[in-house]
Amino acid sequence: MSGPALGVCYYPEQWDESLWAEDAARMVALGLTWVRIAEFAWARIEPAPGRFDWGWLDRAVEVLGSAGLKVILCTPTAAPPKWLVDLHPDILPVAADGTVRKFGARRHYCFSSPRYREEAARITRAVAERYGRNPHVQAWQTDNEYGDHDTVHSYSPAALAAFRDWLRARYGTIGALNRAWGTSFWSMAYSDFGQIELPNNLVEEPSPTHRVDFLRFSSDQVRSFNRAQVGIIRRLSPGRPVTHNYMNQNTDFDHFAVGEDLDLASWDVYPLGGLVHGRLPEAMKARYLRTGDPDQTAFNHDLYRAVGRGRVWVMEQQPGPVNWAVANPAPRDGMVRLWTWLAFAHGCEMVSYFRWRQAPFAQEQYHTGLLHPDSTPDQAFHEVAAVVAEAQALPPLPPRAQARVALVLDYPSRWAGQALPQGQGCNPAHVALDWYAAARRHGVEVDIIGQHSDPEGYDLILAPDLIMADAGFLGRVKAAGAKILFGPRSGSKTAEMQTPEGLAPGPLRAMLDMRVSRVESLPGYHAETVMLGNLALPAHRWRETVETREEVLATFAGDHRGGSPALLGNDRARYLAALMPPEGLLPVITGALDWAGVAWQPDLGDIRLTRRGEVTFAFNYGPDPATAPAPAGARFLIGGRVLPPAGVAAWEGSERAGPEAR
Amino acid sequence: MSGPALGVCYYPEQWDESLWAEDAARMVALGLTWVRIAEFAWARIEPAPGRFDWGWLDRAVEVLGSAGLKVILCTPTAAPPKWLVDLHPDILPVAADGTVRKFGARRHYCFSSPRYREEAARITRAVAERYGRNPHVQAWQTDNEYGDHDTVHSYSPAALAAFRDWLRARYGTIGALNRAWGTSFWSMAYSDFGQIELPNNLVEEPSPTHRVDFLRFSSDQVRSFNRAQVGIIRRLSPGRPVTHNYMNQNTDFDHFAVGEDLDLASWDVYPLGGLVHGRLPEAMKARYLRTGDPDQTAFNHDLYRAVGRGRVWVMEQQPGPVNWAVANPAPRDGMVRLWTWLAFAHGCEMVSYFRWRQAPFAQEQYHTGLLHPDSTPDQAFHEVAAVVAEAQALPPLPPRAQARVALVLDYPSRWAGQALPQGQGCNPAHVALDWYAAARRHGVEVDIIGQHSDPEGYDLILAPDLIMADAGFLGRVKAAGAKILFGPRSGSKTAEMQTPEGLAPGPLRAMLDMRVSRVESLPGYHAETVMLGNLALPAHRWRETVETREEVLATFAGDHRGGSPALLGNDRARYLAALMPPEGLLPVITGALDWAGVAWQPDLGDIRLTRRGEVTFAFNYGPDPATAPAPAGARFLIGGRVLPPAGVAAWEGSERAGPEAR
Amino acid sequence: MSGPALGVCYYPEQWDESLWAEDAARMVALGLTWVRIAEFAWARIEPAPGRFDWGWLDRAVEVLGSAGLKVILCTPTAAPPKWLVDLHPDILPVAADGTVRKFGARRHYCFSSPRYREEAARITRAVAERYGRNPHVQAWQTDNEYGDHDTVHSYSPAALAAFRDWLRARYGTIGALNRAWGTSFWSMAYSDFGQIELPNNLVEEPSPTHRVDFLRFSSDQVRSFNRAQVGIIRRLSPGRPVTHNYMNQNTDFDHFAVGEDLDLASWDVYPLGGLVHGRLPEAMKARYLRTGDPDQTAFNHDLYRAVGRGRVWVMEQQPGPVNWAVANPAPRDGMVRLWTWLAFAHGCEMVSYFRWRQAPFAQEQYHTGLLHPDSTPDQAFHEVAAVVAEAQALPPLPPRAQARVALVLDYPSRWAGQALPQGQGCNPAHVALDWYAAARRHGVEVDIIGQHSDPEGYDLILAPDLIMADAGFLGRVKAAGAKILFGPRSGSKTAEMQTPEGLAPGPLRAMLDMRVSRVESLPGYHAETVMLGNLALPAHRWRETVETREEVLATFAGDHRGGSPALLGNDRARYLAALMPPEGLLPVITGALDWAGVAWQPDLGDIRLTRRGEVTFAFNYGPDPATAPAPAGARFLIGGRVLPPAGVAAWEGSERAGPEAR
Repeated sequence: MSGPALGVCYYPEQWDESLWAEDAARMVALGLTWVRIAEFAWARIEPAPGRFDWGWLDRAVEVLGSAGLKVILCTPTAAPPKWLVDLHPDILPVAADGTVRKFGARRHYCFSSPRYREEAARITRAVAERYGRNPHVQAWQTDNEYGDHDTVHSYSPAALAAFRDWLRARYGTIGALNRAWGTSFWSMAYSDFGQIELPNNLVEEPSPTHRVDFLRFSSDQVRSFNRAQVGIIRRLSPGRPVTHNYMNQNTDFDHFAVGEDLDLASWDVYPLGGLVHGRLPEAMKARYLRTGDPDQTAFNHDLYRAVGRGRVWVMEQQPGPVNWAVANPAPRDGMVRLWTWLAFAHGCEMVSYFRWRQAPFAQEQYHTGLLHPDSTPDQAFHEVAAVVAEAQALPPLPPRAQARVALVLDYPSRWAGQALPQGQGCNPAHVALDWYAAARRHGVEVDIIGQHSDPEGYDLILAPDLIMADAGFLGRVKAAGAKILFGPRSGSKTAEMQTPEGLAPGPLRAMLDMRVSRVESLPGYHAETVMLGNLALPAHRWRETVETREEVLATFAGDHRGGSPALLGNDRARYLAALMPPEGLLPVITGALDWAGVAWQPDLGDIRLTRRGEVTFAFNYGPDPATAPAPAGARFLIGGRVLPPAGVAAWEGSERAGPEAR
Repeated sequence: MSGPALGVCYYPEQWDESLWAEDAARMVALGLTWVRIAEFAWARIEPAPGRFDWGWLDRAVEVLGSAGLKVILCTPTAAPPKWLVDLHPDILPVAADGTVRKFGARRHYCFSSPRYREEAARITRAVAERYGRNPHVQAWQTDNEYGDHDTVHSYSPAALAAFRDWLRARYGTIGALNRAWGTSFWSMAYSDFGQIELPNNLVEEPSPTHRVDFLRFSSDQVRSFNRAQVGIIRRLSPGRPVTHNYMNQNTDFDHFAVGEDLDLASWDVYPLGGLVHGRLPEAMKARYLRTGDPDQTAFNHDLYRAVGRGRVWVMEQQPGPVNWAVANPAPRDGMVRLWTWLAFAHGCEMVSYFRWRQAPFAQEQYHTGLLHPDSTPDQAFHEVAAVVAEAQALPPLPPRAQARVALVLDYPSRWAGQALPQGQGCNPAHVALDWYAAARRHGVEVDIIGQHSDPEGYDLILAPDLIMADAGFLGRVKAAGAKILFGPRSGSKTAEMQTPEGLAPGPLRAMLDMRVSRVESLPGYHAETVMLGNLALPAHRWRETVETREEVLATFAGDHRGGSPALLGNDRARYLAALMPPEGLLPVITGALDWAGVAWQPDLGDIRLTRRGEVTFAFNYGPDPATAPAPAGARFLIGGRVLPPAGVAAWEGSERAGPEAR
Repeated sequence: MSGPALGVCYYPEQWDESLWAEDAARMVALGLTWVRIAEFAWARIEPAPGRFDWGWLDRAVEVLGSAGLKVILCTPTAAPPKWLVDLHPDILPVAADGTVRKFGARRHYCFSSPRYREEAARITRAVAERYGRNPHVQAWQTDNEYGDHDTVHSYSPAALAAFRDWLRARYGTIGALNRAWGTSFWSMAYSDFGQIELPNNLVEEPSPTHRVDFLRFSSDQVRSFNRAQVGIIRRLSPGRPVTHNYMNQNTDFDHFAVGEDLDLASWDVYPLGGLVHGRLPEAMKARYLRTGDPDQTAFNHDLYRAVGRGRVWVMEQQPGPVNWAVANPAPRDGMVRLWTWLAFAHGCEMVSYFRWRQAPFAQEQYHTGLLHPDSTPDQAFHEVAAVVAEAQALPPLPPRAQARVALVLDYPSRWAGQALPQGQGCNPAHVALDWYAAARRHGVEVDIIGQHSDPEGYDLILAPDLIMADAGFLGRVKAAGAKILFGPRSGSKTAEMQTPEGLAPGPLRAMLDMRVSRVESLPGYHAETVMLGNLALPAHRWRETVETREEVLATFAGDHRGGSPALLGNDRARYLAALMPPEGLLPVITGALDWAGVAWQPDLGDIRLTRRGEVTFAFNYGPDPATAPAPAGARFLIGGRVLPPAGVAAWEGSERAGPEAR
């Protein structure tokens, strides 16, 4: 037997104590083994300054633990109590327009507030001292969803003071800052760090280096805030892994950097809101309305597996409609099962559903759970039971193997794009997902890596938006013998957010004999054409003029610089000089796969495949039944050859069916 | 002779005194009998603190009254003078973002300011003492257009203090508030009412109960502000009815509740701005650009007739293009006449035009009047004269009879939808108007009622958006023997803005054996299909999964929970489990009419019919001539059988022509 | 030899001093004769309060000057240093929402700050004292781009105080202000100028006169701020012309008024951003994406030639992609040459490119220059060289001749439209450009004039949006014998922003026996039809009902006031009673040209023609080659008869080819 460990998020403080024991028993009967609690319980734990009420939490841990559940205990710092806010109003975050963001929801704190750091450490210490060695407590979560509600960036006096200190540490002298920020421009010179301001409410854009430094600083504040809690827990609760639950699509802080301080990564999986707010055009959003973007969730599993250095959990799995998106459709029946198996197939060790029972009150009362508010089972309850049953058929499976293809996600490069977008309409997060999807639609596994990662063992590296390419990383790629495909803007900014000497692509020039002599951002009502052999492919939003002595693999068509290189390269590296919509990108990516000798399959349409050990999993995101590309002699462990909508199949058999890779 | 009494809004303070007598004489000659004055005259009445200048107003009342006009005198509290704002800046309202909203236009006061309540009472007393028993003063209007410019909701310190008091009165103990608001969620617990804040500038949404309570509180503040004025006037001006002029489509306060303190309701009729900012798709907005939404104005007549417990006036009737909409087209010639007769047909006793003479200065100089700024007649002047002439042909008509169908409008339910919309794009005001229109397009009269109303005598009650359904009301409906059709979300929230025990539809479950096990909000790019017999009808925006033992009358089609009930019910009650655009709604409504035994006609297209006494009125909103569905022997009192665009007809004859109700 | 003098914008403070001499030599070798410097150099000139560092600037002027370049020196007041902001935070501008706009970019000053006026005068004096008589300094620019980043309108305490003073001076008594603003409306009366507030953060719109006065005041503040600098420079630097570099499409201050204090006008030419943010529908924006609106740049040359009373420079010419628009495409190769010749053909004496070398740092690092950041030539460098070579073929040309047609641009009328738009979607700047383009597409030269201008010598005057028509101007037009075509709204507001006595068109009624009895603004989803003879023309957005005894030349069609005059007039004046899209406007404008006896050609499509002296210039803005309408015997000085895309031709020959004017 295999399959993920299963768990659930539970809020004893929200229910009458008389329900706890039965809830715990039902969780265990369903097959759950983990339960996450207490991430918003500060006001119940410490209802008045220094007055702690541990009794209820003691009993809750005992009830859950003695029923056989392993408790993931959370630090409650995502929601400080009202009395704390009233004692210290300076802990509140400040919005970009200067407005203080008040108590009444959650995440009402500024990461830079020294007072809040003290208080967060104090409550973390208190909780960890009491439960650190409790045998039922088997793991920890710090805080909750850093970055939610745009709270990483605070414009408070505390943030200003901390930013100045951060700049002092980074630059040493004000002269170095002046050079980096280019303050000879627009008379912006500083003579002292104490003159620096936060980059909000300016008359016009700040220096992009000013902005990038503020984004870096803000990310560092999250990391140090988190690290303080991890340190306390590690000391007081030895042997229990510490994690944090990341959010899909948030890039306000460096997830890799925070991940270095954790024992494993976890993330919160809400595919339908992700679709509605995501990259796809409306026709595709309609097609996948109740199944989600076929690639976004997988992308994040692969990302957080990297963030957790191989270990990843789903801390919150969407169980049905949620409450927070601009539209909140229901998943197609079967999708909770599908998402659970998808997580497992992508290497997740544990999947915890959010939440056990739907709340009948407060902000999230339209967020479903495994149970309705009246404790009757909702759809997801039955699908979890199905997963538990199906897991019996699976053999033990090894950890996920390294893929042959990796895609680089670099948070500082995202901030660079944010600081200097050079036109509206280019979303780097969408670009990276389009690249990932182009490979995945052809059945190719893709790992996500950072520039700090070891590229050894990859045949092909995809670098769709590596604006701040690092020479060290490029050197390691070269040493590893991997081929690499760069997207436009790669290498175009130094760490100081400047144009590199000798122009873009800066450090890539050690691999590619080229330079970018011009960039253009283009409005949505204009498209370019790229000729790749006989194929006329669309390009949009961004075009570069490249001068090169490398082989030109594709060119721009038309009478504006027609014939200018659109794709070029050598045997180690290629460079794509434009953004492309998916239909343009697919042949570029499959061409790169051929180049790297990575096998791929014909476009899988609504199906996605992935492997774990000897088992291949297939998932159908479309509205129609589809045939799994399983080999003739495949032994089906889950499902069968024909996948209904929302269907899952898993089979053993080392080769794949259908037209093989070319 | 019959027809509405006619009047006009006049501003003696804006014109040289030498014009008054001639103006009054021309009003009388035109056939007007009422004149409303002084709602923005505070600065003229009291040009400096405590220094009153009554002379001009004494003379104005005398000139108008002695010419034969009945004066509607207003309290001037909608626009406090600059000196008062400078003396007491704390009377200014505060916007949701915390900005103080300054002097320079109108409605620059906070309903919660104790200082402004004193001042408003003082000036009301002064005006009522001077004119309360003046024989020319025959009615009163309090303030002007409560709710305009988003001024019901103020975030001032005074509002905060009053809100805390209101909560103390509502909940008694902080524990009760904590339970109602669900503050065990997100660590939001309060230990004292003094900790509560206004629900603005939070990091994320507040508890929906927090928000609903603020909306209720704000509505109550309007009511008590108004009631104070009414009390003063009643004491000092016996025998004169007191009214207030409501605005179309405003739901920021409970119009029924304020109406309980008035002698009659009045409202301000601006159909073209209402169209431009209203519910219809663009093609329909283009079709009715110069005639207005064929149902919106009638809906409001029916609403305010209920608010006024049978008595309704039009205080301001659009006379031509106005100045305040995003586009300000001219009414088609004839529409001022049409709107006047429409008001009368729907039971209005008096129609007062806004305004006598177009102002050549200040904010509304593009707002037309009966006269041009140079005192020459504008189009509306001639149309008023036509109405006066036509009224000769009409017999005296009784008050409007009770309809057989009623539609429930519940303000707290609107606030519930606002506090917890569960997705964008569902406008309850549009939904209710769509339901009303579906009946009206089939020639059926519809009364508007509230949950406090007596449902006795209705055959069918339409409840399109009764989120906070009240068990008492439902009991009265049952006792009255009326059938009732509920829309989705009905009964889904308790008075504490929580999910009812046993799930939605909460109190409806006493009438319907069902529960709603899931709700979905849907984006605009997706549509559902509902099968009603052989009819495939569109549904959109909102879909529910219902478990029921009742008869299922229509089901959702398709492979996502296909066959799930879309319309269900028994002989007393039906429940529609989705939102539907008009083309989907029509068969549902006509089906309900058949069920209730209410006769209806084929779709009237651009024509609308209504009856008062034995007279049937017909109105043509379309661009083409149309035939009135009058019986063969109808005796035409106004117009004839063929209605030109903007045409009006009225005939005697008890049965209607054309295909009769089935 | 002829052609414009050429120059470049240079920032010695941004480059290592070792580069200066070579840069200067290359400029000279390229054929440049002017160089603009130091407009953002305050922090380098005065790095600490009162401590001046002149050395670098002395050397820069010397290096550039001794290489043979004439220096345009700038006052550095567009970007005060941080130490000055810290010493006097009250110099910062305040946004309309009340937010102080901070240091960190540029233009961070309030025009009304007395402190900043002192400081600006002090630094201007210091710079002018040091360089006023330097032989290399041959011209001056004040500040930089007044109006950029919405900085003309500041809502600071200083602005409030100055506004009150300005009102005192304008009105003398508060009674006069009350009458002008119409404060009998909405109880807005003032008893003292000290009660007046700035028109921001009100509950609803202020009196339009209040707003127009604030707009006028703000414009006057710019003028007096600029005039102070001009006075200092004139005294200390005799014989050098003083200019300012205006921005395309900015109407926040009266450019003519500021121009009266200058020796010549200059402006900054960025056609592609102008296109992207401009008037054209998307299909046309796509067509001209890399060439720009064929008429917008020419319009501005003609405008600023008037502002400079005949003398106009281009101070900043776009050399390639820029950084600041919502999309930043590259110009088609050849466009920098085209724009340079266009400027010359429209009378510009000098064209200076922005900038010499692209910056590798700070806000504008994606703004191209003549050189790449690594000093290699970019595309524009080569195109400048081509212009220099081509100029050899040209004979000396006289100043641009007066056209036979003039278009009136009146800044106060624009402010009137802004204060009282009466609906969304009518952009007067777009309307005026549409009128200009309609003539230009037919090969007709158009001068831009103001109401202060002398209309002598014009055959036809176009007045598309002369809301605040001035009786004096109209009298001079009549005296000059010019015919005049007015657009809708002309003469509709007095100087007090009121409806004129006898209604619109107010002072026009001395020329036209008409009055406007009704105006309508229309939404984008509705169109009107105008019959001009047999032609059915579209009208949109604005329609007027006119009563007239003049000849009716076109009428509105349809059943809403069908037959109502749409175009009417006599032998001196015509009035167009609607807004029209270009396809409707063309026949109206050609009809007016015929009426005035001005010859015109068939629609030139993508080609534009203009003349200077005996030379005709032709420019191709389209994607296809086109034939220049040159006479048979034309002698081509630049280019040839067939114009490629982005092509320029110039020929001698007095008559034009093709179908002649009718």
